[in-house]
Amino acid sequence: MIIDRLYEAVKRRGPVCVGLDPSPELLPPGLLRGRSLAHAFLAFNREIVDATLDIVACYKLQIAHYEALGVEGLAAYRDTLRYIRARGAIAIGDVKRGDIASTAQMYARAHFEGDFEADFLTLNPYLGFDSISPFLPYLKRGGKGLFILIRTSNPSAPEFQDLFCSTPHASPVTRHPLYLHVAEAVALWGEPFVGGCGYSLIGGVVGGTSREALAEIRKGFPSIFLLVPGYGAQGATGRDVAAAFRDGNGAVVAAARAIIGAHRGKQDAARRFSEYARAAALAMREEVCRWIR
Amino acid sequence: MIIDRLYEAVKRRGPVCVGLDPSPELLPPGLLRGRSLAHAFLAFNREIVDATLDIVACYKLQIAHYEALGVEGLAAYRDTLRYIRARGAIAIGDVKRGDIASTAQMYARAHFEGDFEADFLTLNPYLGFDSISPFLPYLKRGGKGLFILIRTSNPSAPEFQDLFCSTPHASPVTRHPLYLHVAEAVALWGEPFVGGCGYSLIGGVVGGTSREALAEIRKGFPSIFLLVPGYGAQGATGRDVAAAFRDGNGAVVAAARAIIGAHRGKQDAARRFSEYARAAALAMREEVCRWIR
Repeated sequence: MIIDRLYEAVKRRGPVCVGLDPSPELLPPGLLRGRSLAHAFLAFNREIVDATLDIVACYKLQIAHYEALGVEGLAAYRDTLRYIRARGAIAIGDVKRGDIASTAQMYARAHFEGDFEADFLTLNPYLGFDSISPFLPYLKRGGKGLFILIRTSNPSAPEFQDLFCSTPHASPVTRHPLYLHVAEAVALWGEPFVGGCGYSLIGGVVGGTSREALAEIRKGFPSIFLLVPGYGAQGATGRDVAAAFRDGNGAVVAAARAIIGAHRGKQDAARRFSEYARAAALAMREEVCRWIR
Repeated sequence: MIIDRLYEAVKRRGPVCVGLDPSPELLPPGLLRGRSLAHAFLAFNREIVDATLDIVACYKLQIAHYEALGVEGLAAYRDTLRYIRARGAIAIGDVKRGDIASTAQMYARAHFEGDFEADFLTLNPYLGFDSISPFLPYLKRGGKGLFILIRTSNPSAPEFQDLFCSTPHASPVTRHPLYLHVAEAVALWGEPFVGGCGYSLIGGVVGGTSREALAEIRKGFPSIFLLVPGYGAQGATGRDVAAAFRDGNGAVVAAARAIIGAHRGKQDAARRFSEYARAAALAMREEVCRWIR
């Protein structure tokens, strides 16, 4: 199962997930010369992958960065995914899709078997179970996995996710934040898909910026593998994200700008950007592992 | 403002929104001959647009149907949007994106100015205001608009959207469903963008399958223009969706399969599929308008 592979990768190479989210500002000088922006993204990504393959758990691609370049950008998204998987590494398509069942089926086709095939996908839970269920046949037969948004890393996350909620007929009113209702559902949906490592193919996204939520979910839902964004540029520290782990596993911590932009301001950025990325990933791994018990 | 254009379109041509969501099964026989699937989608869409331009309010493209065909499918998405807008009609990109601010900025670039430029976009509210705010500069200067998911049309919609919620410090607990909290936020976010027609550039998606929710939102939030999916294949009737309207305006009702698949099972489907689509759109307009007071 792909979740067992991810668990093994964390065990052997540490919990860093490299966010391959390039943007024009992040490209080292010179990389664009004679190339379209989309081709430069692909060249940039391949060098970063080559330089980090042995020290990170997986890669995450935020599709928006590629959609912003249109059709050509999505070709770079496709080719980056193919490159990662051809190198034997694990790729997460950070697409956060969420739609009615007939549409979800199309998204599953697009991102689990089509041009944009990834190993894991992120999904948005707002539409409930029938927006998730069309992906499940791929978990059964295709070795695929999901990360469902539970509690995100952005400043506005509390606006709806932290509202205290109860089912209409609950009496007395149980005062659980919405994100815990979602976590409960994610754990339930994931029950049939627990791998040998003890974690389910249906994981959750919980931002590193809310240490309490992380600790609460790690403790309350032992089978949910966590994808933790928010490290670095968004402000979460090694100490913050440590709450996501149990026995040094059960989570990956994603960072994009902090790793792929580590070359910024360096004299030799053009030549050595992937070395800077590797050094940043190693430093991040060390910082995170220092706090993991 | 684009919302005033949409209001005028409803007034002059009725409230039907054609869902251009093709799939291999929906293509009339013969259309694929000598063409890739993506090219067949584009040819199909253009004929449907030509045949319905004078009797519908707007078009909605569910991007998942194109993503499922990969890079080539997204070229057909781009070209269909361009065709609709070049013909002077209004195009809604049904993308339901929702992500942190830096990512939302990329999505805004992709779908409000890049290859995939649409007039309106659908967005998912789960991440709160900072996932919406990067789109707002386009509303101010670009004549663009949004439809935020409030209460969706799928069977699982109640799972989270109908949970009774209150802010953590509210006492006594106010028992409003989550979707009403979202509707309140949508109305507030939209206040600075109300057009001459009385509706805001920030509208909402409310499924036709929940008549109560529709009536409640129409009554409680007079400035929210509504995009109403769920008509036809998903089970909503003209009587159901009538609750979305005020004085015959303020909403569009979307249908895809019921219109673009109207040719199925007809002997002359290959030659006359767009005439069947036109007839279905006219019948739908009549049915909906019969119930609008």
